[in-house]
Amino acid sequence: MPPADRIRDHSGQGAATTVAAHRTRRRLRADQARQLADLLRHQILAGAFPDGTLPHESTVADDYRATRNTVRQALDLLRAEGLVDRLPGVGTVVVARKYPHGLDRLMGLAETLREHGQVTNEVRTMGPSAAPTPVAERLRVPPGADVLYIERLRRLNGLPLSLDLTYIPLDIGSALLGADLENNDVFRLLESITGQPLGHAEITLEAVNADAHSAAVLQAPRGAAVLMLERLTHLADGRPVDLEFIRFRGDRITMSGLLHRSL
Amino acid sequence: MPPADRIRDHSGQGAATTVAAHRTRRRLRADQARQLADLLRHQILAGAFPDGTLPHESTVADDYRATRNTVRQALDLLRAEGLVDRLPGVGTVVVARKYPHGLDRLMGLAETLREHGQVTNEVRTMGPSAAPTPVAERLRVPPGADVLYIERLRRLNGLPLSLDLTYIPLDIGSALLGADLENNDVFRLLESITGQPLGHAEITLEAVNADAHSAAVLQAPRGAAVLMLERLTHLADGRPVDLEFIRFRGDRITMSGLLHRSL
Repeated sequence: MPPADRIRDHSGQGAATTVAAHRTRRRLRADQARQLADLLRHQILAGAFPDGTLPHESTVADDYRATRNTVRQALDLLRAEGLVDRLPGVGTVVVARKYPHGLDRLMGLAETLREHGQVTNEVRTMGPSAAPTPVAERLRVPPGADVLYIERLRRLNGLPLSLDLTYIPLDIGSALLGADLENNDVFRLLESITGQPLGHAEITLEAVNADAHSAAVLQAPRGAAVLMLERLTHLADGRPVDLEFIRFRGDRITMSGLLHRSL
Repeated sequence: MPPADRIRDHSGQGAATTVAAHRTRRRLRADQARQLADLLRHQILAGAFPDGTLPHESTVADDYRATRNTVRQALDLLRAEGLVDRLPGVGTVVVARKYPHGLDRLMGLAETLREHGQVTNEVRTMGPSAAPTPVAERLRVPPGADVLYIERLRRLNGLPLSLDLTYIPLDIGSALLGADLENNDVFRLLESITGQPLGHAEITLEAVNADAHSAAVLQAPRGAAVLMLERLTHLADGRPVDLEFIRFRGDRITMSGLLHRSL
Protein backbone atom coordinates (compact mmCIF):
# COMPACT_ATOMS: atom_id res chain seq x y z
CA MET A 1 0.00 0.00 0.00
CA PRO A 2 1.35 3.46 -0.75
CA PRO A 3 1.89 5.38 2.50
CA ALA A 4 -0.57 8.24 2.64
CA ASP A 5 2.12 10.91 2.49
CA ARG A 6 3.31 9.68 -0.90
CA ILE A 7 -0.10 9.79 -2.48
CA ARG A 8 -1.32 12.75 -4.42
CA ASP A 9 -4.95 13.08 -3.45
CA HIS A 10 -6.68 14.61 -6.46
CA SER A 11 -10.21 14.92 -5.20
CA GLY A 12 -9.83 16.16 -1.63
CA GLN A 13 -9.85 19.90 -1.07
CA GLY A 14 -6.88 19.66 1.30
CA ALA A 15 -7.03 19.22 5.07
CA ALA A 16 -8.33 22.70 5.66
CA THR A 17 -10.61 21.52 8.40
CA THR A 18 -10.36 18.63 10.84
CA VAL A 19 -13.53 17.11 9.39
CA ALA A 20 -12.11 17.13 5.87
CA ALA A 21 -8.84 15.59 7.06
CA HIS A 22 -10.71 12.90 8.94
CA ARG A 23 -12.84 12.15 5.90
CA THR A 24 -9.78 11.92 3.68
CA ARG A 25 -8.06 9.53 6.11
CA ARG A 26 -11.13 7.31 6.26
CA ARG A 27 -11.43 7.29 2.48
CA LEU A 28 -7.76 6.46 2.11
CA ARG A 29 -8.09 3.56 4.54
CA ALA A 30 -11.12 2.18 2.66
CA ASP A 31 -9.31 2.62 -0.67
CA GLN A 32 -6.24 0.85 0.66
CA ALA A 33 -8.34 -1.98 2.09
CA ARG A 34 -9.95 -2.51 -1.33
CA GLN A 35 -6.53 -2.41 -3.00
CA LEU A 36 -5.18 -5.04 -0.61
CA ALA A 37 -8.33 -7.17 -0.86
CA ASP A 38 -7.96 -7.33 -4.65
CA LEU A 39 -4.36 -8.56 -4.33
CA LEU A 40 -5.31 -11.15 -1.71
CA ARG A 41 -8.29 -12.27 -3.80
CA HIS A 42 -5.94 -12.96 -6.69
CA GLN A 43 -3.61 -14.92 -4.42
CA ILE A 44 -6.49 -16.98 -3.04
CA LEU A 45 -7.86 -17.80 -6.51
CA ALA A 46 -4.35 -18.59 -7.76
CA GLY A 47 -3.96 -21.14 -4.98
CA ALA A 48 -1.15 -19.28 -3.23
CA PHE A 49 -2.25 -20.63 0.18
CA PRO A 50 -2.16 -24.39 -0.43
CA ASP A 51 -3.01 -25.33 3.16
CA GLY A 52 -6.04 -23.03 3.03
CA THR A 53 -4.78 -20.71 5.78
CA LEU A 54 -3.73 -17.11 5.21
CA PRO A 55 -0.59 -15.82 6.96
CA HIS A 56 -1.05 -13.99 10.25
CA GLU A 57 -2.36 -10.42 9.99
CA SER A 58 1.00 -8.99 11.02
CA THR A 59 2.78 -10.99 8.30
CA VAL A 60 0.29 -9.78 5.71
CA ALA A 61 0.80 -6.24 7.00
CA ASP A 62 4.58 -6.58 6.57
CA ASP A 63 4.34 -8.27 3.15
CA TYR A 64 2.02 -5.60 1.78
CA ARG A 65 3.43 -2.63 3.72
CA ALA A 66 -0.04 -2.01 5.12
CA THR A 67 -1.26 -1.17 8.59
CA ARG A 68 -2.92 -3.85 10.72
CA ASN A 69 -6.17 -1.87 10.45
CA THR A 70 -6.03 -1.97 6.67
CA VAL A 71 -5.33 -5.71 6.72
CA ARG A 72 -8.30 -6.31 9.00
CA GLN A 73 -10.56 -4.20 6.80
CA ALA A 74 -9.37 -6.03 3.66
CA LEU A 75 -10.06 -9.42 5.26
CA ASP A 76 -13.51 -8.17 6.24
CA LEU A 77 -14.20 -7.40 2.58
CA LEU A 78 -13.15 -10.90 1.53
CA ARG A 79 -15.23 -12.38 4.33
CA ALA A 80 -18.28 -10.45 3.15
CA GLU A 81 -17.68 -11.96 -0.31
CA GLY A 82 -17.71 -15.42 1.26
CA LEU A 83 -14.12 -16.16 0.19
CA VAL A 84 -12.54 -16.46 3.65
CA ASP A 85 -13.63 -16.88 7.24
CA ARG A 86 -11.99 -16.30 10.60
CA LEU A 87 -11.63 -19.39 12.79
CA PRO A 88 -10.80 -18.91 16.48
CA GLY A 89 -7.35 -20.30 17.21
CA VAL A 90 -6.62 -20.92 13.54
CA GLY A 91 -6.76 -17.53 11.83
CA THR A 92 -8.16 -16.63 8.44
CA VAL A 93 -9.00 -19.61 6.25
CA VAL A 94 -10.12 -19.92 2.64
CA VAL A 95 -13.69 -21.25 2.67
CA ALA A 96 -14.81 -20.90 -0.95
CA ARG A 97 -13.35 -22.31 -4.08
CA LYS A 98 -13.85 -20.66 -7.44
CA TYR A 99 -13.54 -22.74 -10.60
CA PRO A 100 -12.17 -21.31 -13.83
CA HIS A 101 -14.37 -21.48 -16.92
CA GLY A 102 -12.38 -20.89 -20.10
CA LEU A 103 -13.18 -17.93 -22.34
CA ASP A 104 -10.82 -19.02 -25.08
CA ARG A 105 -12.60 -22.05 -26.43
CA LEU A 106 -16.23 -23.10 -26.71
CA MET A 107 -16.64 -25.84 -24.11
CA GLY A 108 -19.38 -27.42 -22.07
CA LEU A 109 -19.30 -27.20 -18.28
CA ALA A 110 -18.30 -30.83 -17.64
CA GLU A 111 -15.56 -30.58 -20.28
CA THR A 112 -14.09 -27.38 -18.88
CA LEU A 113 -14.27 -28.49 -15.21
CA ARG A 114 -13.20 -32.10 -15.80
CA GLU A 115 -10.09 -31.83 -13.63
CA HIS A 116 -12.08 -30.30 -10.78
CA GLY A 117 -14.65 -33.03 -10.31
CA GLN A 118 -17.94 -34.38 -11.52
CA VAL A 119 -20.65 -32.22 -13.05
CA THR A 120 -24.21 -33.51 -12.60
CA ASN A 121 -27.35 -31.93 -13.98
CA GLU A 122 -30.76 -31.88 -12.36
CA VAL A 123 -33.31 -31.53 -15.14
CA ARG A 124 -36.00 -29.32 -13.60
CA THR A 125 -38.08 -28.93 -16.74
CA MET A 126 -37.96 -30.43 -20.22
CA GLY A 127 -40.47 -30.37 -23.01
CA PRO A 128 -41.54 -28.85 -26.33
CA SER A 129 -42.59 -25.23 -26.21
CA ALA A 130 -43.80 -22.78 -28.85
CA ALA A 131 -40.88 -20.46 -29.65
CA PRO A 132 -41.53 -16.75 -29.04
CA THR A 133 -40.45 -14.61 -32.00
CA PRO A 134 -37.03 -13.57 -30.58
CA VAL A 135 -36.15 -17.22 -29.88
CA ALA A 136 -37.47 -18.39 -33.27
CA GLU A 137 -35.48 -15.72 -35.11
CA ARG A 138 -32.23 -16.60 -33.41
CA LEU A 139 -32.69 -20.35 -33.89
CA ARG A 140 -33.95 -19.75 -37.46
CA VAL A 141 -37.21 -21.65 -37.02
CA PRO A 142 -40.70 -20.31 -37.91
CA PRO A 143 -42.20 -18.16 -35.11
CA GLY A 144 -44.44 -20.30 -32.94
CA ALA A 145 -42.75 -23.54 -34.04
CA ASP A 146 -42.04 -25.92 -31.20
CA VAL A 147 -38.54 -25.91 -29.77
CA LEU A 148 -37.19 -28.06 -26.97
CA TYR A 149 -36.99 -26.12 -23.71
CA ILE A 150 -34.74 -27.48 -20.94
CA GLU A 151 -34.08 -26.08 -17.49
CA ARG A 152 -31.19 -27.57 -15.55
CA LEU A 153 -29.57 -26.98 -12.20
CA ARG A 154 -25.92 -27.91 -12.62
CA ARG A 155 -23.70 -29.03 -9.78
CA LEU A 156 -20.00 -29.68 -9.38
CA ASN A 157 -19.28 -32.35 -6.79
CA GLY A 158 -22.79 -31.80 -5.47
CA LEU A 159 -22.55 -27.99 -5.07
CA PRO A 160 -24.94 -25.83 -7.14
CA LEU A 161 -22.97 -23.98 -9.80
CA SER A 162 -25.42 -22.72 -12.40
CA LEU A 163 -29.02 -22.58 -13.56
CA ASP A 164 -29.28 -23.07 -17.33
CA LEU A 165 -32.26 -22.25 -19.57
CA THR A 166 -31.85 -23.87 -22.99
CA TYR A 167 -33.73 -23.69 -26.32
CA ILE A 168 -33.00 -26.18 -29.12
CA PRO A 169 -34.75 -26.63 -32.50
CA LEU A 170 -37.09 -29.59 -32.16
CA ASP A 171 -35.76 -31.63 -35.12
CA ILE A 172 -32.49 -31.92 -33.19
CA GLY A 173 -33.91 -31.54 -29.70
CA SER A 174 -36.33 -34.47 -29.95
CA ALA A 175 -33.34 -36.83 -29.91
CA LEU A 176 -32.35 -35.30 -26.55
CA LEU A 177 -35.60 -36.40 -24.89
CA GLY A 178 -34.28 -39.90 -24.30
CA ALA A 179 -30.65 -38.93 -23.67
CA ASP A 180 -28.78 -39.00 -20.36
CA LEU A 181 -28.89 -35.29 -19.62
CA GLU A 182 -28.02 -35.85 -15.96
CA ASN A 183 -24.45 -36.81 -16.77
CA ASN A 184 -23.71 -35.23 -20.14
CA ASP A 185 -23.14 -31.75 -21.50
CA VAL A 186 -25.73 -30.72 -24.09
CA PHE A 187 -22.76 -29.77 -26.31
CA ARG A 188 -21.51 -33.36 -26.50
CA LEU A 189 -25.01 -34.69 -27.13
CA LEU A 190 -25.62 -32.17 -29.93
CA GLU A 191 -22.42 -33.22 -31.66
CA SER A 192 -23.32 -36.88 -31.35
CA ILE A 193 -26.92 -36.31 -32.60
CA THR A 194 -25.95 -34.16 -35.58
CA GLY A 195 -22.74 -36.01 -36.42
CA GLN A 196 -20.82 -32.76 -36.75
CA PRO A 197 -18.76 -30.64 -34.35
CA LEU A 198 -19.99 -27.35 -32.98
CA GLY A 199 -18.57 -24.29 -34.69
CA HIS A 200 -18.81 -21.01 -32.81
CA ALA A 201 -20.94 -19.18 -30.26
CA GLU A 202 -21.84 -15.55 -29.66
CA ILE A 203 -21.68 -14.82 -25.95
CA THR A 204 -22.65 -11.95 -23.68
CA LEU A 205 -21.63 -11.76 -20.02
CA GLU A 206 -23.27 -9.62 -17.35
CA ALA A 207 -23.18 -9.30 -13.57
CA VAL A 208 -26.66 -9.22 -12.02
CA ASN A 209 -28.11 -9.57 -8.54
CA ALA A 210 -29.98 -12.85 -8.14
CA ASP A 211 -33.74 -12.50 -7.69
CA ALA A 212 -35.22 -14.34 -4.72
CA HIS A 213 -36.35 -17.38 -6.69
CA SER A 214 -33.11 -17.87 -8.66
CA ALA A 215 -31.13 -17.42 -5.46
CA ALA A 216 -33.20 -20.11 -3.74
CA VAL A 217 -32.65 -22.55 -6.61
CA LEU A 218 -28.90 -21.87 -6.58
CA GLN A 219 -28.87 -22.03 -2.75
CA ALA A 220 -27.25 -18.59 -2.67
CA PRO A 221 -28.24 -15.55 -0.61
CA ARG A 222 -30.92 -13.33 -2.13
CA GLY A 223 -29.27 -10.59 -4.13
CA ALA A 224 -26.05 -12.60 -4.52
CA ALA A 225 -23.98 -11.51 -7.52
CA VAL A 226 -24.53 -13.83 -10.46
CA LEU A 227 -22.52 -14.09 -13.67
CA MET A 228 -25.13 -14.22 -16.47
CA LEU A 229 -24.00 -15.83 -19.70
CA GLU A 230 -26.15 -15.64 -22.80
CA ARG A 231 -24.84 -17.90 -25.53
CA LEU A 232 -26.05 -18.74 -29.04
CA THR A 233 -24.14 -21.77 -30.30
CA HIS A 234 -23.87 -22.79 -33.94
CA LEU A 235 -22.93 -26.08 -35.58
CA ALA A 236 -19.80 -26.18 -37.71
CA ASP A 237 -22.00 -25.65 -40.79
CA GLY A 238 -23.26 -22.38 -39.26
CA ARG A 239 -26.76 -23.45 -38.21
CA PRO A 240 -27.76 -22.07 -34.76
CA VAL A 241 -28.72 -25.01 -32.54
CA ASP A 242 -28.55 -23.98 -28.89
CA LEU A 243 -29.68 -20.75 -27.23
CA GLU A 244 -28.82 -20.63 -23.52
CA PHE A 245 -29.31 -18.28 -20.60
CA ILE A 246 -26.98 -19.35 -17.80
CA ARG A 247 -26.76 -17.96 -14.25
CA PHE A 248 -23.45 -18.90 -12.63
CA ARG A 249 -23.02 -18.39 -8.90
CA GLY A 250 -20.56 -15.51 -8.69
CA ASP A 251 -18.78 -17.04 -5.72
CA ARG A 252 -18.06 -20.31 -7.53
CA ILE A 253 -17.06 -19.42 -11.09
CA THR A 254 -14.48 -17.20 -12.75
CA MET A 255 -14.07 -16.76 -16.51
CA SER A 256 -10.53 -16.63 -17.84
CA GLY A 257 -9.10 -15.94 -21.22
CA LEU A 258 -6.51 -14.28 -23.40
CA LEU A 259 -7.11 -11.12 -25.43
CA HIS A 260 -4.95 -9.87 -28.28
CA ARG A 261 -4.44 -6.28 -29.35
CA SER A 262 -4.51 -6.99 -33.07
CA LEU A 263 -6.96 -9.42 -34.64
CA MET B 1 -43.73 -20.00 -22.19
CA PRO B 2 -44.61 -23.67 -22.20
CA PRO B 3 -48.10 -24.20 -20.78
CA ALA B 4 -47.82 -26.07 -17.51
CA ASP B 5 -49.60 -29.16 -18.84
CA ARG B 6 -46.92 -29.73 -21.48
CA ILE B 7 -44.03 -29.60 -19.05
CA ARG B 8 -42.57 -32.66 -17.47
CA ASP B 9 -41.81 -31.63 -13.92
CA HIS B 10 -38.83 -33.73 -12.87
CA SER B 11 -38.32 -32.60 -9.32
CA GLY B 12 -41.86 -32.38 -7.90
CA GLN B 13 -43.21 -35.46 -6.15
CA GLY B 14 -46.54 -35.15 -7.98
CA ALA B 15 -49.59 -33.26 -6.78
CA ALA B 16 -50.41 -35.80 -4.10
CA THR B 17 -51.47 -33.08 -1.72
CA THR B 18 -52.94 -29.65 -2.28
CA VAL B 19 -49.91 -28.05 -0.64
CA ALA B 20 -47.53 -29.79 -3.02
CA ALA B 21 -49.66 -28.82 -6.02
CA HIS B 22 -49.77 -25.23 -4.86
CA ARG B 23 -46.02 -25.19 -4.38
CA THR B 24 -45.44 -26.64 -7.82
CA ARG B 25 -47.71 -24.02 -9.41
CA ARG B 26 -45.92 -21.22 -7.63
CA ARG B 27 -42.52 -22.61 -8.66
CA LEU B 28 -43.65 -22.95 -12.25
CA ARG B 29 -44.87 -19.36 -12.30
CA ALA B 30 -41.55 -18.11 -10.91
CA ASP B 31 -39.62 -20.26 -13.39
CA GLN B 32 -41.71 -18.95 -16.27
CA ALA B 33 -41.27 -15.36 -15.10
CA ARG B 34 -37.49 -15.84 -15.09
CA GLN B 35 -37.62 -17.42 -18.52
CA LEU B 36 -39.62 -14.51 -19.93
CA ALA B 37 -37.45 -11.93 -18.13
CA ASP B 38 -34.32 -13.36 -19.80
CA LEU B 39 -35.90 -13.06 -23.25
CA LEU B 40 -37.08 -9.51 -22.58
CA ARG B 41 -33.66 -8.57 -21.17
CA HIS B 42 -32.07 -9.70 -24.41
CA GLN B 43 -34.58 -7.66 -26.44
CA ILE B 44 -33.95 -4.58 -24.30
CA LEU B 45 -30.15 -4.87 -24.61
CA ALA B 46 -30.45 -5.55 -28.34
CA GLY B 47 -32.37 -2.28 -28.74
CA ALA B 48 -35.59 -3.97 -29.84
CA PHE B 49 -37.68 -1.17 -28.30
CA PRO B 50 -36.25 1.89 -30.05
CA ASP B 51 -38.71 4.34 -28.50
CA GLY B 52 -37.82 3.02 -25.05
CA THR B 53 -41.33 1.75 -24.29
CA LEU B 54 -42.21 -1.91 -23.95
CA PRO B 55 -45.45 -3.15 -25.54
CA HIS B 56 -48.53 -3.37 -23.32
CA GLU B 57 -48.59 -6.30 -20.90
CA SER B 58 -51.35 -8.01 -22.86
CA THR B 59 -49.33 -7.76 -26.08
CA VAL B 60 -46.29 -9.23 -24.35
CA ALA B 61 -48.53 -11.98 -22.95
CA ASP B 62 -49.76 -12.79 -26.48
CA ASP B 63 -46.31 -12.59 -28.07
CA TYR B 64 -44.76 -14.91 -25.49
CA ARG B 65 -47.81 -17.13 -24.88
CA ALA B 66 -47.60 -16.23 -21.19
CA THR B 67 -50.24 -15.30 -18.66
CA ARG B 68 -50.64 -11.67 -17.57
CA ASN B 69 -49.44 -12.71 -14.11
CA THR B 70 -46.23 -14.16 -15.54
CA VAL B 71 -45.64 -11.00 -17.60
CA ARG B 72 -46.12 -8.82 -14.52
CA GLN B 73 -43.74 -10.98 -12.50
CA ALA B 74 -41.12 -10.90 -15.30
CA LEU B 75 -41.35 -7.10 -15.50
CA ASP B 76 -40.95 -6.95 -11.71
CA LEU B 77 -37.67 -8.89 -12.07
CA LEU B 78 -36.38 -6.47 -14.69
CA ARG B 79 -37.47 -3.54 -12.57
CA ALA B 80 -35.56 -4.94 -9.58
CA GLU B 81 -32.49 -5.11 -11.84
CA GLY B 82 -32.97 -1.44 -12.64
CA LEU B 83 -33.47 -2.10 -16.36
CA VAL B 84 -37.08 -0.88 -16.66
CA ASP B 85 -39.55 1.16 -14.71
CA ARG B 86 -43.30 1.57 -14.77
CA LEU B 87 -44.57 5.06 -15.55
CA PRO B 88 -48.23 5.86 -14.84
CA GLY B 89 -50.07 6.53 -18.08
CA VAL B 90 -47.09 5.44 -20.20
CA GLY B 91 -46.39 1.81 -19.30
CA THR B 92 -43.09 0.03 -18.89
CA VAL B 93 -40.11 2.03 -20.08
CA VAL B 94 -36.43 1.17 -20.45
CA VAL B 95 -34.51 3.26 -17.90
CA ALA B 96 -31.00 1.81 -18.01
CA ARG B 97 -28.60 1.46 -20.86
CA LYS B 98 -25.90 -1.19 -20.91
CA TYR B 99 -22.83 -0.67 -23.03
CA PRO B 100 -21.03 -3.55 -24.76
CA HIS B 101 -17.35 -4.06 -23.96
CA GLY B 102 -15.70 -6.32 -26.51
CA LEU B 103 -14.16 -9.62 -25.41
CA ASP B 104 -12.61 -10.34 -28.80
CA ARG B 105 -9.87 -7.74 -28.87
CA LEU B 106 -7.74 -6.01 -26.27
CA MET B 107 -9.09 -2.46 -26.15
CA GLY B 108 -9.20 0.43 -23.74
CA LEU B 109 -12.53 1.71 -22.45
CA ALA B 110 -12.62 4.90 -24.52
CA GLU B 111 -11.66 2.95 -27.65
CA THR B 112 -14.33 0.30 -27.17
CA LEU B 113 -17.09 2.78 -26.24
CA ARG B 114 -16.16 5.45 -28.78
CA GLU B 115 -19.49 5.29 -30.59
CA HIS B 116 -21.45 5.57 -27.34
CA GLY B 117 -19.98 8.81 -26.04
CA GLN B 118 -17.13 10.38 -24.16
CA VAL B 119 -15.14 8.54 -21.50
CA THR B 120 -13.61 10.74 -18.82
CA ASN B 121 -11.41 9.60 -15.97
CA GLU B 122 -11.27 11.07 -12.48
CA VAL B 123 -7.83 10.30 -11.09
CA ARG B 124 -8.49 9.62 -7.40
CA THR B 125 -4.95 8.57 -6.53
CA MET B 126 -1.66 8.49 -8.38
CA GLY B 127 1.86 7.98 -7.17
CA PRO B 128 4.79 5.61 -6.75
CA SER B 129 4.24 2.71 -4.40
CA ALA B 130 6.44 -0.20 -3.27
CA ALA B 131 5.21 -3.29 -5.14
CA PRO B 132 4.07 -6.16 -2.90
CA THR B 133 5.56 -9.49 -3.98
CA PRO B 134 2.54 -10.71 -6.02
CA VAL B 135 2.47 -7.44 -7.99
CA ALA B 136 6.26 -7.41 -8.43
CA GLU B 137 6.26 -10.98 -9.72
CA ARG B 138 3.56 -10.36 -12.27
CA LEU B 139 5.14 -7.12 -13.52
CA ARG B 140 8.62 -8.73 -13.39
CA VAL B 141 10.18 -6.04 -11.20
CA PRO B 142 12.17 -6.70 -8.00
CA PRO B 143 9.93 -7.14 -4.93
CA GLY B 144 9.63 -3.81 -3.13
CA ALA B 145 10.60 -1.81 -6.21
CA ASP B 146 8.45 1.23 -6.81
CA VAL B 147 5.65 0.89 -9.33
CA LEU B 148 3.18 3.56 -10.38
CA TYR B 149 -0.19 3.06 -8.71
CA ILE B 150 -3.22 4.79 -10.22
CA GLU B 151 -6.83 4.74 -9.09
CA ARG B 152 -9.42 6.10 -11.50
CA LEU B 153 -13.18 6.49 -11.53
CA ARG B 154 -14.21 6.22 -15.15
CA ARG B 155 -17.37 7.78 -16.56
CA LEU B 156 -19.21 7.56 -19.84
CA ASN B 157 -21.10 10.77 -20.65
CA GLY B 158 -20.76 11.67 -16.98
CA LEU B 159 -22.18 8.42 -15.55
CA PRO B 160 -19.87 6.30 -13.34
CA LEU B 161 -18.96 3.12 -15.20
CA SER B 162 -15.95 1.59 -13.47
CA LEU B 163 -13.37 1.93 -10.72
CA ASP B 164 -9.89 0.95 -11.95
CA LEU B 165 -6.83 0.09 -9.83
CA THR B 166 -3.69 0.07 -11.96
CA TYR B 167 -0.04 -0.92 -11.40
CA ILE B 168 2.65 -0.01 -13.95
CA PRO B 169 6.45 -0.51 -13.76
CA LEU B 170 7.96 2.84 -12.81
CA ASP B 171 10.41 3.14 -15.73
CA ILE B 172 7.36 3.33 -18.00
CA GLY B 173 4.92 4.74 -15.47
CA SER B 174 6.96 7.83 -14.62
CA ALA B 175 6.16 9.18 -18.09
CA LEU B 176 2.45 8.90 -17.22
CA LEU B 177 2.77 11.36 -14.32
CA GLY B 178 2.55 14.35 -16.64
CA ALA B 179 0.14 12.82 -19.14
CA ASP B 180 -3.51 13.71 -19.68
CA LEU B 181 -5.03 10.74 -17.86
CA GLU B 182 -8.41 12.46 -17.61
CA ASN B 183 -9.08 12.11 -21.32
CA ASN B 184 -6.93 9.19 -22.45
CA ASP B 185 -6.91 5.42 -22.02
CA VAL B 186 -3.77 4.16 -20.27
CA PHE B 187 -3.45 1.69 -23.19
CA ARG B 188 -2.95 4.47 -25.73
CA LEU B 189 -0.50 6.29 -23.46
CA LEU B 190 1.53 3.11 -22.89
CA GLU B 191 1.82 2.57 -26.63
CA SER B 192 2.90 6.14 -27.19
CA ILE B 193 5.44 6.05 -24.30
CA THR B 194 7.02 2.73 -25.28
CA GLY B 195 6.78 3.23 -29.04
CA GLN B 196 5.36 -0.24 -29.51
CA PRO B 197 1.84 -1.68 -29.64
CA LEU B 198 0.39 -3.76 -26.84
CA GLY B 199 0.47 -7.50 -27.41
CA HIS B 200 -1.88 -9.60 -25.32
CA ALA B 201 -3.56 -9.68 -21.91
CA GLU B 202 -4.59 -12.42 -19.52
CA ILE B 203 -8.03 -11.66 -18.12
CA THR B 204 -10.26 -13.05 -15.40
CA LEU B 205 -13.90 -12.05 -14.98
CA GLU B 206 -15.99 -12.47 -11.84
CA ALA B 207 -19.34 -11.29 -10.52
CA VAL B 208 -19.13 -9.88 -6.98
CA ASN B 209 -21.37 -7.83 -4.72
CA ALA B 210 -20.04 -4.30 -4.26
CA ASP B 211 -18.82 -3.50 -0.75
CA ALA B 212 -20.22 -0.31 0.80
CA HIS B 213 -17.25 1.89 -0.08
CA SER B 214 -16.90 0.71 -3.71
CA ALA B 215 -20.65 1.08 -4.17
CA ALA B 216 -20.51 4.65 -2.88
CA VAL B 217 -17.69 5.55 -5.27
CA LEU B 218 -19.59 4.01 -8.20
CA GLN B 219 -22.84 5.65 -7.02
CA ALA B 220 -24.48 2.23 -7.02
CA PRO B 221 -26.58 0.61 -4.29
CA ARG B 222 -24.64 -1.28 -1.63
CA GLY B 223 -24.36 -4.92 -2.64
CA ALA B 224 -24.96 -4.10 -6.32
CA ALA B 225 -23.60 -6.75 -8.68
CA VAL B 226 -20.25 -5.71 -10.10
CA LEU B 227 -18.35 -7.24 -13.00
CA MET B 228 -14.75 -7.58 -11.75
CA LEU B 229 -12.08 -7.72 -14.42
CA GLU B 230 -8.51 -8.55 -13.55
CA ARG B 231 -6.19 -7.96 -16.47
CA LEU B 232 -2.43 -8.30 -16.95
CA THR B 233 -1.43 -6.60 -20.18
CA HIS B 234 1.83 -7.21 -22.06
CA LEU B 235 3.63 -5.16 -24.68
CA ALA B 236 4.06 -6.71 -28.13
CA ASP B 237 7.56 -7.83 -27.07
CA GLY B 238 6.01 -9.81 -24.18
CA ARG B 239 6.93 -7.57 -21.27
CA PRO B 240 4.09 -7.19 -18.70
CA VAL B 241 3.34 -3.47 -18.31
CA ASP B 242 -0.09 -2.99 -16.82
CA LEU B 243 -1.83 -4.90 -14.02
CA GLU B 244 -5.42 -3.76 -13.47
CA PHE B 245 -8.29 -4.57 -11.14
CA ILE B 246 -11.47 -3.12 -12.62
CA ARG B 247 -14.95 -2.99 -11.08
CA PHE B 248 -17.59 -2.37 -13.74
CA ARG B 249 -21.11 -1.47 -12.65
CA GLY B 250 -23.12 -4.56 -13.55
CA ASP B 251 -26.09 -2.49 -14.69
CA ARG B 252 -24.05 -0.47 -17.20
CA ILE B 253 -21.67 -2.91 -18.92
CA THR B 254 -21.97 -6.18 -20.81
CA MET B 255 -19.03 -8.14 -22.24
CA SER B 256 -19.54 -9.69 -25.66
CA GLY B 257 -17.45 -11.98 -27.76
CA LEU B 258 -17.19 -14.96 -30.04
CA LEU B 259 -15.96 -18.40 -28.98
CA HIS B 260 -14.82 -21.17 -31.28
CA ARG B 261 -15.05 -24.89 -30.67
CA SER B 262 -11.63 -25.70 -32.13
CA LEU B 263 -8.57 -23.56 -31.51
